[in-house]
Amino acid sequence: MKAAYYEGNEQIRIGECTPAPPGPNQVQIRVSHCGICGTDLHVFHGKMDHRVTMPAVIGHEMSGAIEAVGSRVSGWAAGDRVTVRPLDPCGACPACKAGHSHICQKLKFIGIDAPGAMQGLWTVPAHTLHRLPDSLSMEQGALIEPIAVACHDVRLGGVKAGEYVVVQGGGPIGALVALVAMNEGGRVVVSEINPFRIKLLRELGVEVVNPMETDMVALVEEQTGGAGADVVFEVSGSNAGAETMTKLPRTRGRIVVVAVFGDPPPVDLFKFFWREVVMLGARVYEPQDFDAALELATSRKLPIDKIITNTCPLDQLEWGFRQLEKGGEVMKVLVACS
Amino acid sequence: MKAAYYEGNEQIRIGECTPAPPGPNQVQIRVSHCGICGTDLHVFHGKMDHRVTMPAVIGHEMSGAIEAVGSRVSGWAAGDRVTVRPLDPCGACPACKAGHSHICQKLKFIGIDAPGAMQGLWTVPAHTLHRLPDSLSMEQGALIEPIAVACHDVRLGGVKAGEYVVVQGGGPIGALVALVAMNEGGRVVVSEINPFRIKLLRELGVEVVNPMETDMVALVEEQTGGAGADVVFEVSGSNAGAETMTKLPRTRGRIVVVAVFGDPPPVDLFKFFWREVVMLGARVYEPQDFDAALELATSRKLPIDKIITNTCPLDQLEWGFRQLEKGGEVMKVLVACS
Repeated sequence: MKAAYYEGNEQIRIGECTPAPPGPNQVQIRVSHCGICGTDLHVFHGKMDHRVTMPAVIGHEMSGAIEAVGSRVSGWAAGDRVTVRPLDPCGACPACKAGHSHICQKLKFIGIDAPGAMQGLWTVPAHTLHRLPDSLSMEQGALIEPIAVACHDVRLGGVKAGEYVVVQGGGPIGALVALVAMNEGGRVVVSEINPFRIKLLRELGVEVVNPMETDMVALVEEQTGGAGADVVFEVSGSNAGAETMTKLPRTRGRIVVVAVFGDPPPVDLFKFFWREVVMLGARVYEPQDFDAALELATSRKLPIDKIITNTCPLDQLEWGFRQLEKGGEVMKVLVACS
Repeated sequence: MKAAYYEGNEQIRIGECTPAPPGPNQVQIRVSHCGICGTDLHVFHGKMDHRVTMPAVIGHEMSGAIEAVGSRVSGWAAGDRVTVRPLDPCGACPACKAGHSHICQKLKFIGIDAPGAMQGLWTVPAHTLHRLPDSLSMEQGALIEPIAVACHDVRLGGVKAGEYVVVQGGGPIGALVALVAMNEGGRVVVSEINPFRIKLLRELGVEVVNPMETDMVALVEEQTGGAGADVVFEVSGSNAGAETMTKLPRTRGRIVVVAVFGDPPPVDLFKFFWREVVMLGARVYEPQDFDAALELATSRKLPIDKIITNTCPLDQLEWGFRQLEKGGEVMKVLVACS
C-alpha cells in the first residue's frame, strides 16, 4: 500500500501508507482512484502550507470500496462501493446553525485540513459517504465530486431551460459546469484559451470561443439580440475574467463566482448598479448536489468519460501536477491509488 | 419664472424660464421644490457632460402642482399636487421587454437626458406622475423620489424583520435606506465619517459608527455573535467601502451596491466564494417603490422632515453644491423653484 506525501516546496514523496484503523463513526476505504484537483495543485505550489500538516496526504476526488467499518456506523459494510463528500463541519457555528454547514465557519476540508485520498487505505467519517451504483466504474466514481461542484454552481446560478449561459474557463470544472448547464436546457458558450481543451470540449458538443480571437462581449450581444447573458460562470480566476464577467450579463443577469481568486481584482461595480446585476459565490456542494451528480453520471446523460484524459499510477502524481500547471494536453487526470 | 442653467465647468446661471407648452400625453407642472441629488452634483462637476445638453436645466427630486394638461391625458387636472418618477423608458429594448423598464437600455432619465425640474414650469410625460396626498407638504413631496430610491434598495436587498443591516455611508440616501430598513424591522448600523451627519442620524434614533474610530468588521462580528451581517448597503462609493463591504456579510449574506462607482475598485472575490455571498446592484425605482415611499411619508412613520436641513431660493443652488462637495453641515438641501 502506497501513499503520496506532500512535503512542501513542490516536493511529492511516494512512501508506504500507514493505515488508520476506523474509530467510532468512521470507515476505512480502499481507495481506487483519485482525481487531481486545482486545489491539490495549489497545495503542491505551497499556497496552502498554512492549512496542511506535512508530510501531508492530499486528494479528495475519489472512489473506492469500504475495507473496514468502525463502531457506531450503521448502513455501511465492507465491500460497499463509495465516494466521499469531503466536508467535516463543526455543527455549532453560525453558518452551521443557519443551515449552511457545507461552508461552516470552521469547516474541515478532508484532503487539506485532514489527510486525503491519495493513499491505499483512507479513514473518513461515515457521514461523508455516498454510495456508488454498480453501473458506475471506479474511474467514473472519482468524477462524482467535481460533478457535484458543477451541480452546486448551476443550481445556485439558477440556470433555467432556454437561458443563455457563458462559462469563463473550460478546465475540468468549467467543462462540467457547461455540461450540467446544457443538461438543464441552457444555451451554453464556454470561453477558453487552451487549444487542447477547446478541441476536447467541441468534441463533446460544447460551443467554445477563444477570447483571444473573438470579442466575447460583441458575440454575446449579437447572440442574445442585444440583451446580454442570463448567467455568467467565472471559473477562470483571472483578472481578464473578472473584467469580462461584468460586461456580459443582461439586466438582472447573474454572475456566479466559482474560481478561487487570490488577490482582489478590479471589479466594475458600476455595471452592477447600471443593470442591477446579481453576483453570488458558490463553494463546494451540499448533499443534494452529490445526489444530483450521481444521478447524472448513472443516467449517462453527460459524456463524463471523455473528461478523463489520463489515468496514471500514484507515482506519476508529480507528472500530473506539471501537466496541469503548464496547461498541458490534459483535462481530468486520475491517479490509481491501490 | 426662473430656471437654473448648468453651462459646463461648474457654472450655474440663473435665468428666465422658457416654459414648454404640454404636448400630447404631457403635463406642465409649476414646480414648488426640488432637492439637490448627488447626481446633480456629478453634473455640476462636469462628469455627465456627455449626457446633458447645455445650457441644461437639471433636477429631478421635486414637488409641484399641475399648471396645464396636454391632449390625450386623462386622470389629471390643473391644480393636482404631484411628484414625478423621472424615467422615460423606450419600451422596446430587451430590458423593457423583460419587465425591467426602470433600467431600460436606452433609458431617458428626465433631469439629465431631458430638461429637469429646477425651473418654474416643467413639462413632463403624464406617465411619470404620482399624486401627492394633501397631508404632505411640498417640501415633503420633494423627498418622495429619494425615499423611493431607498424603498427600491431595501426591497431588492430583501431586508426582513430582525436582520442585521449595515449601511456604508450616511448621506441622504444612506440615511433613508437606514430608516426604511429600520421600518422593515431591521437592526441597522450606519457607517459614516461626517460629524454633522453622524449627529443628525443619532438624533433620528439611528445607530451610527465612525469607521475611522471603530473597527467595523470587529463590531459587526461582535454584535452578530460571529455570524456577520445579513445585508450590507454600499452607499459610500469609496474604495474603502468596496473593501469593507466584502468583510461584513454572513454566509449567504447580501451586499447591495447603491453607490455609483467611477473607476472599478479592487473587490475581494474570494470572499464571495468563501461565504457564498450575494451582491446585487440597485438602480432608481419601479412604480411600486414610489407607492411605498408615498405610503411611508404619509403615515409619518419616518422622521423625513429632519432629513431636510436647508431650503433655499433657486439662486442659492451653487451654495448647495458647494456644501455637498465639501461635506458641509447639510443633509438634504431643497431649492424653491417658483
